[in-house]
Amino acid sequence: MPIEPIRYVTKVDLSKPGDAQPQVHNRWHPDVPFTETIKVGETVKIECLDWTGNQIVNTDDANDIKDVDLTRIHYLSGPFNIEGAKPGDCLVVEIKDVQPLERQPWGYCGIFHKSNGGGFLDGFYPEAAKAIFDLEGIHATSRHLPNVKFTGLIHPGIMGTAPSAGILKEWNSREGSLKASIQHNHDTSVANLPEPINSHAGKASDKAIIEKIAKEGARTIPGRPEHGGNCDIKNLSRGSKCYFPVYVEGAKFSVGDLHFSQGDGEISFCGAIEMAGVITLKFSIIPNGIEKLALKSPIFIPGDVPNNYGPSRYITFEGFSVTETGEQQYLDATTAYRQACIRAIEYLRRFGYNDYQIYLLLSSAPIEGHIAGIVDVPNACTTLGIPMDIFDFDISPEAEIVRQDLGTCAFVKNADHPVIYKFK
Amino acid sequence: MPIEPIRYVTKVDLSKPGDAQPQVHNRWHPDVPFTETIKVGETVKIECLDWTGNQIVNTDDANDIKDVDLTRIHYLSGPFNIEGAKPGDCLVVEIKDVQPLERQPWGYCGIFHKSNGGGFLDGFYPEAAKAIFDLEGIHATSRHLPNVKFTGLIHPGIMGTAPSAGILKEWNSREGSLKASIQHNHDTSVANLPEPINSHAGKASDKAIIEKIAKEGARTIPGRPEHGGNCDIKNLSRGSKCYFPVYVEGAKFSVGDLHFSQGDGEISFCGAIEMAGVITLKFSIIPNGIEKLALKSPIFIPGDVPNNYGPSRYITFEGFSVTETGEQQYLDATTAYRQACIRAIEYLRRFGYNDYQIYLLLSSAPIEGHIAGIVDVPNACTTLGIPMDIFDFDISPEAEIVRQDLGTCAFVKNADHPVIYKFK
Amino acid sequence: MPIEPIRYVTKVDLSKPGDAQPQVHNRWHPDVPFTETIKVGETVKIECLDWTGNQIVNTDDANDIKDVDLTRIHYLSGPFNIEGAKPGDCLVVEIKDVQPLERQPWGYCGIFHKSNGGGFLDGFYPEAAKAIFDLEGIHATSRHLPNVKFTGLIHPGIMGTAPSAGILKEWNSREGSLKASIQHNHDTSVANLPEPINSHAGKASDKAIIEKIAKEGARTIPGRPEHGGNCDIKNLSRGSKCYFPVYVEGAKFSVGDLHFSQGDGEISFCGAIEMAGVITLKFSIIPNGIEKLALKSPIFIPGDVPNNYGPSRYITFEGFSVTETGEQQYLDATTAYRQACIRAIEYLRRFGYNDYQIYLLLSSAPIEGHIAGIVDVPNACTTLGIPMDIFDFDISPEAEIVRQDLGTCAFVKNADHPVIYKFK
Amino acid sequence: MPIEPIRYVTKVDLSKPGDAQPQVHNRWHPDVPFTETIKVGETVKIECLDWTGNQIVNTDDANDIKDVDLTRIHYLSGPFNIEGAKPGDCLVVEIKDVQPLERQPWGYCGIFHKSNGGGFLDGFYPEAAKAIFDLEGIHATSRHLPNVKFTGLIHPGIMGTAPSAGILKEWNSREGSLKASIQHNHDTSVANLPEPINSHAGKASDKAIIEKIAKEGARTIPGRPEHGGNCDIKNLSRGSKCYFPVYVEGAKFSVGDLHFSQGDGEISFCGAIEMAGVITLKFSIIPNGIEKLALKSPIFIPGDVPNNYGPSRYITFEGFSVTETGEQQYLDATTAYRQACIRAIEYLRRFGYNDYQIYLLLSSAPIEGHIAGIVDVPNACTTLGIPMDIFDFDISPEAEIVRQDLGTCAFVKNADHPVIYKFK
Repeated sequence: MPIEPIRYVTKVDLSKPGDAQPQVHNRWHPDVPFTETIKVGETVKIECLDWTGNQIVNTDDANDIKDVDLTRIHYLSGPFNIEGAKPGDCLVVEIKDVQPLERQPWGYCGIFHKSNGGGFLDGFYPEAAKAIFDLEGIHATSRHLPNVKFTGLIHPGIMGTAPSAGILKEWNSREGSLKASIQHNHDTSVANLPEPINSHAGKASDKAIIEKIAKEGARTIPGRPEHGGNCDIKNLSRGSKCYFPVYVEGAKFSVGDLHFSQGDGEISFCGAIEMAGVITLKFSIIPNGIEKLALKSPIFIPGDVPNNYGPSRYITFEGFSVTETGEQQYLDATTAYRQACIRAIEYLRRFGYNDYQIYLLLSSAPIEGHIAGIVDVPNACTTLGIPMDIFDFDISPEAEIVRQDLGTCAFVKNADHPVIYKFK
Repeated sequence: MPIEPIRYVTKVDLSKPGDAQPQVHNRWHPDVPFTETIKVGETVKIECLDWTGNQIVNTDDANDIKDVDLTRIHYLSGPFNIEGAKPGDCLVVEIKDVQPLERQPWGYCGIFHKSNGGGFLDGFYPEAAKAIFDLEGIHATSRHLPNVKFTGLIHPGIMGTAPSAGILKEWNSREGSLKASIQHNHDTSVANLPEPINSHAGKASDKAIIEKIAKEGARTIPGRPEHGGNCDIKNLSRGSKCYFPVYVEGAKFSVGDLHFSQGDGEISFCGAIEMAGVITLKFSIIPNGIEKLALKSPIFIPGDVPNNYGPSRYITFEGFSVTETGEQQYLDATTAYRQACIRAIEYLRRFGYNDYQIYLLLSSAPIEGHIAGIVDVPNACTTLGIPMDIFDFDISPEAEIVRQDLGTCAFVKNADHPVIYKFK
Repeated sequence: MPIEPIRYVTKVDLSKPGDAQPQVHNRWHPDVPFTETIKVGETVKIECLDWTGNQIVNTDDANDIKDVDLTRIHYLSGPFNIEGAKPGDCLVVEIKDVQPLERQPWGYCGIFHKSNGGGFLDGFYPEAAKAIFDLEGIHATSRHLPNVKFTGLIHPGIMGTAPSAGILKEWNSREGSLKASIQHNHDTSVANLPEPINSHAGKASDKAIIEKIAKEGARTIPGRPEHGGNCDIKNLSRGSKCYFPVYVEGAKFSVGDLHFSQGDGEISFCGAIEMAGVITLKFSIIPNGIEKLALKSPIFIPGDVPNNYGPSRYITFEGFSVTETGEQQYLDATTAYRQACIRAIEYLRRFGYNDYQIYLLLSSAPIEGHIAGIVDVPNACTTLGIPMDIFDFDISPEAEIVRQDLGTCAFVKNADHPVIYKFK
Repeated sequence: MPIEPIRYVTKVDLSKPGDAQPQVHNRWHPDVPFTETIKVGETVKIECLDWTGNQIVNTDDANDIKDVDLTRIHYLSGPFNIEGAKPGDCLVVEIKDVQPLERQPWGYCGIFHKSNGGGFLDGFYPEAAKAIFDLEGIHATSRHLPNVKFTGLIHPGIMGTAPSAGILKEWNSREGSLKASIQHNHDTSVANLPEPINSHAGKASDKAIIEKIAKEGARTIPGRPEHGGNCDIKNLSRGSKCYFPVYVEGAKFSVGDLHFSQGDGEISFCGAIEMAGVITLKFSIIPNGIEKLALKSPIFIPGDVPNNYGPSRYITFEGFSVTETGEQQYLDATTAYRQACIRAIEYLRRFGYNDYQIYLLLSSAPIEGHIAGIVDVPNACTTLGIPMDIFDFDISPEAEIVRQDLGTCAFVKNADHPVIYKFK
């Protein structure tokens, strides 16, 4: 009665771009064809490309980050036909494991150039930057972030069921409205509408279908309430049990954008430790689960083996909704969290890291970002907690400051720009 | 060599309103006189009134909540002269313990009427409501929230050093600007500017000083980046070590608004388990600490005994920045967290609680609110985690739903309004 | 509808010896009279003397420890009549809180002289010693153990229901048999049989009853499987729910020997931070619970707020069942744990503590003692874990050793004996 | 600058017995030749056979367990030459990961027959039994233990450096003395002395060396204080950093006996989830570390990702040193832990499991075994905690008992013996 190895339903090729691989796709659309069928109760392994489909390389410069083609993201494995799933059901997905690929034991965290992607702090740090992480078992270290080591809270950045045609229409409409109304006030894109260029419809071979997907397919950048998608929740890690609404026959579940680790907020946008990897999932169905669970958005039960640094091993920064230039915002948790990030940068740079290194660290390490108070008008308060034990030196407030040579992260070749921002 | 009992530097009277007690005050101003002097290295006990100064009573109606006088908040104990603290220093405050007063073993959580205070969900739940909690040792239960019991993550809602005259001016200016620019778009107050009515200047006896404080004193409602104040951080609990910037001689540290428990966000505004209590604090000083620690806002190291329900004992709801009416917001974590709250209400009401009960529960129980992804334009994603083990029945997605009679929270006498809101 | 303060069913007097106080007793016997009646569902507060009934004082010598009168222990509050409890029932006791008495904010840990009590390591450390701990809120520190601070995992050393006459007889018989068969091989007492001298029968006034209790009453030193008693389980702390078999009408529940903190093993015998204090308990009954739960010994569900130092913040020592002189024992976990203790002493003394100080520390701090492997003949393996963060300097294996002057614990006046034991 | 996959220094063959594979060995002896050299700072992968070298198969009977050949254990990978390690040094081994082999995703837990191996409870459960576990990612389930699922706290049962000739002699002498003095009182082996039959000297080809190892080589069954070996510590899991004394040039480090999961005590002897697997280790050296760290036995710092069920999710049984027949033992933690195991069996069998199933469960699941009090003469007290959430039904004391059909574990074909033991 030997047990067979767990079945792989997707394998990926690390030597070819994502759009050359029909087992992945990069747009949300109900017409992307199934790549495989999975039975209820079955556990399968699914290999995933890194989100850019092999655009980023293991080097000490950030030219690849600067020039990344953001029409060619995210490459997702699937969609999968979960046998018997019907619209109205709840698809239950248990994350049995996530691992980097044994054949590529590294990942990266990037800061996009403000003119090509940007990020949470691009007002202060507009340049492209990168850190390469070595992945050894459960640990990550980086030559670009010396004296730091942590255990990855490994997870998929993206999981989701396919939208119905109606939901897809709703997405495109509401995001289009936003873009129409506020884009003129922003210098980076506020929403990414369907983009035919480099749309990848997976296994689709019918030209009309391919064109339809290219024209209508929702971009994978935002998470969306109806199906999850790119939610980037670091605690959706090993052992989690997730409940998704089903909108189309067979659920058309897709997964990708695997992260070895991420901080709450994933602030640099390319901000986790991005990697190619393999995820082990088990599927089941709650018939009529949308109604039964009052399920308008995914819910989940986290796993039982997250990093446990001990609650008192975090140094915690408070951030309020007053901008860095002293402007009062109204109960704005986003502004408040940005301020907490800035406080952390000012604190950590005293040890010798430059601001871009810290930005990468806050993005990729297991940082805790909490909403604290959100009703004390006009200030929202958030907290950002850094586990002190990921450093091999003492960063506590009691530590004696010894400014070390802590190198630098990767920048564009021959870069010459400030790496410290003087906040007011 | 007997050790003396720990010295009380403040005692409060539960039978008199806050403004009749000179050992407390309710405005932030550098001229509020010291009530006591505390030595560096000394541990002291400080009794605190509940934040309203005894306005709320232990009853089954919410008339007291509806009629609360919000010009008469928050009553803070102090300010204290920390011997030797100088502007530029960092004041280190260690929270040795927080306890309800033995003579008043109950607390309350309130939902303010939309016309008098409001809260995070006042668009859907405009009425006043209340839950009274019995506090037995570390546990809280409420006759208004049956079948729930939890351990309090007990903490002060407010701690802070006094602002300098310059900082106070800055506060009043920037909050005034906000009010001037956006108040007309809101039906609740967006900021509370200095309010002479019911200003309480503590021990001040000089009439000119009293009037100055009344006229200029900053309200205690918002936390503020410069000194913390009403930050409402649930994890700032027993064992925490907090680092505050000092702006005036002696620091003029004040504390109050004790909470037996609170959820992340404190969403109903009067939203923790509010109580009178006693806090035990130890003080020390890092000379020139503002510069040494790059300390623009308070930081802290949490304690080592928070509630530990186990990471996999939370049911977690995802919330995205699309409003409840389907409008797309831009990377708005506040909207996203509101959606997570709504998802939790829709889920929990299936068991028999009404929406106001759940609103009170999310406010006061040890709810985890995280910023998940804040860069995936246009959607911020937040999560709200409810510890399943605070219920004495199974609330997991696998639970069979048995609708129970779970009573109701306190409303205004003879109230007659909907207790369930139909979201789109 | 004001809630009354929680009812005290026992108050103690710190100025009088235990045997002058009828609300406590120091022998287990079914005939010790009830002191109070408690209703099912009622929560009460119970003050307790320290276990010796005020024999130990806050000084810098250990003469009180050396001369302690061990016929006068442990003074337990009660017994209490739990209304309606019947033989065969299960008594459910919820620990709502434990606190030191506000009027005596200190405790002590002692090492008994080998000739009067002894302890786990009395072969190497035969002298009397003591450490006084200051108790400030949740924290303990000691002038006799400098550079150490920890949060107390506070708990009662003793809780138990009264034995029936039959069970009492069984206890005396089986412990008598042990004493008869092996006492001649030991130089400390292997069991303490009923001891009329200083027997304290609580409220009993009938001379015949007093004499019967003195003659037959079981000593309180050992925990016993039938009812728990002096189990000294550090995790039986705040929030725990305990299930006791009931053998007599009304259960006759007693409690005492409160510990502010204790390490697994409580190795120095007087080995916790012993204190006078107050415990808040809630009682209920499972009728016929002995049969229903197959309840031959107490069971419990621990609380949710124990110290959480983080699993990776412990330095862990392995101990095997080979004695310190190289003799092989057979699967002896007791020997194995002793070896782990010795390894910890050898390790910690390098920093400047003397062995007696470390012995006191391992006894009283939140040390983790695990049974690891107990079947690998002939060696049992145990582990002893010390939380590194209770020290304010680095004790990790990577730490540079800087031998500090770390003072000493209290010894007998003018003591002159080795404080370091040279193990083979 | 591509990173190469991590180097494998050992691969194993699952189709051949252990003694046919020269990259493994099964005796401790300084003369077993190195299989590979590993550099300081290098991270390597090491495949390991299951401890029996493929003797156990995935079936529903326990004949393989009954007939296991215990002269042919444990097959360890190595020994490895850690470049530069010298006697007197400390070898630091960081466990980066442990995984089952992808090609064999199952493991087993066995109860040995009393006449061939036995175990902690063989007085009551003398028959052979087995449970096969399916390993899917981090989770284990077993068709022989239905309704149970848990995350593996995965670890090597055995790690150790080679003994010097002198230490080896000491081992054989002291274990020989034990055997000589007490074997006649036991019906199972109290120690296993060197056994030439089926000795496997790894890569050794010199006949004299092979014979020397066969004659003198220490058995791998016990852990030993000098080097660790078969310590079976469940928390020596992923992320742990271990410190071993070095006795011979190159350290001659060996590893094996990988466990997917184990309870404290590993009570059934073949008692973990035994598996073939791969371990990822990183090596470094502290020169002269034995003296520097006072290192007589291995020490370790555990990892930061153990199972975290929440402290209040354990049902905890107390065990005292009174035997199951009512005999009083003297401070015997081994007896006390056995009693705690019996209490757990009596409790769990009410739900429908038979005693052998529970024995297997206590052995293999993440059970917590603590030493509680070890000085309260004559009773040692231990505790055994079972995480309630590994069951998919409620096992709390409040649960309504519904006796289910929970199948059985594997027994010998056509077995017919009691599966419930009636304790007094």
